[in-house]
Amino acid sequence: MSIQYYWEDLAVGSVRELGSTVVTAEEIKEFAEQFDPQPFHLDELAGRRSIYGGMCASGWHTCSLAMRLTVENFLRESSSLGSPGLENLRWLKPVFPDDRLTLTHVILESRPMRSRPEVGIVRSRWEMVNQDGEKVLQMEGYGMFGRRHPATPEELARIEAERGSG
Amino acid sequence: MSIQYYWEDLAVGSVRELGSTVVTAEEIKEFAEQFDPQPFHLDELAGRRSIYGGMCASGWHTCSLAMRLTVENFLRESSSLGSPGLENLRWLKPVFPDDRLTLTHVILESRPMRSRPEVGIVRSRWEMVNQDGEKVLQMEGYGMFGRRHPATPEELARIEAERGSG
Repeated sequence: MSIQYYWEDLAVGSVRELGSTVVTAEEIKEFAEQFDPQPFHLDELAGRRSIYGGMCASGWHTCSLAMRLTVENFLRESSSLGSPGLENLRWLKPVFPDDRLTLTHVILESRPMRSRPEVGIVRSRWEMVNQDGEKVLQMEGYGMFGRRHPATPEELARIEAERGSG
Repeated sequence: MSIQYYWEDLAVGSVRELGSTVVTAEEIKEFAEQFDPQPFHLDELAGRRSIYGGMCASGWHTCSLAMRLTVENFLRESSSLGSPGLENLRWLKPVFPDDRLTLTHVILESRPMRSRPEVGIVRSRWEMVNQDGEKVLQMEGYGMFGRRHPATPEELARIEAERGSG
């Protein structure tokens, strides 16, 4: 797969529709058995008796499904180098079996990486909604992307100066 | 499993050692194929050529491993009702095959849940280190726990008042 998106191509404010996925009861249980074996993720009856009103996916499963859509519909055509972290991760509504989840991604901020002139950083927000348009997941993350052209010493000096005055 | 820890039992400042786990190359690839198919999570050579210097686990895999330790060594003996979200999630170092990861959990804050008198909320920090003592993961999360005794109207009124004056 050839690279279509380098750091320079990721404009602040640009919105990407990253597709949809459906999660089944079997998948919810399989993930939970492996990584999050709490009763409301494993068993229909325990789910119905819980504050969620039904068996629901582990929040880590929901995040992982969002990641798969992000890789398939964006990152694998990009110069992505991974992520140092996330903020404001919110599991807003439970994800139930057979929910259809649709992901949107918007770029909030972009800057060169001071320690690596060949890398730029973007800050993005992901939002995932279910088939009823209810937001189930929101998070803001940092992503590192290779640049088409490395930062010049002047560019890095300017960033230092801006940071110093901030 | 009977419940040992209710919200009232989770003291601010208390530290819990949540055990260790080892992640194999096969597990790293299997998770990545399913949820994060980026080359540096799937293939040794691509990993060596990446900024990580070796094939490494998806950050979501690392989080999911931390969750499993948290459930096995804490939450399944508690009145845990799940989590509304997280802050300050940081993937600080790559996780490589055969790394032994050890998790610690500290309770930072505790308060009643205003909308549900039978539930309390704690804010916690997780830290995961590898066999060399390097921190690979850090996150701060909110957890909901059932209470031994529901909040009284007086308690909820006091919280409202404190919030109002804050």
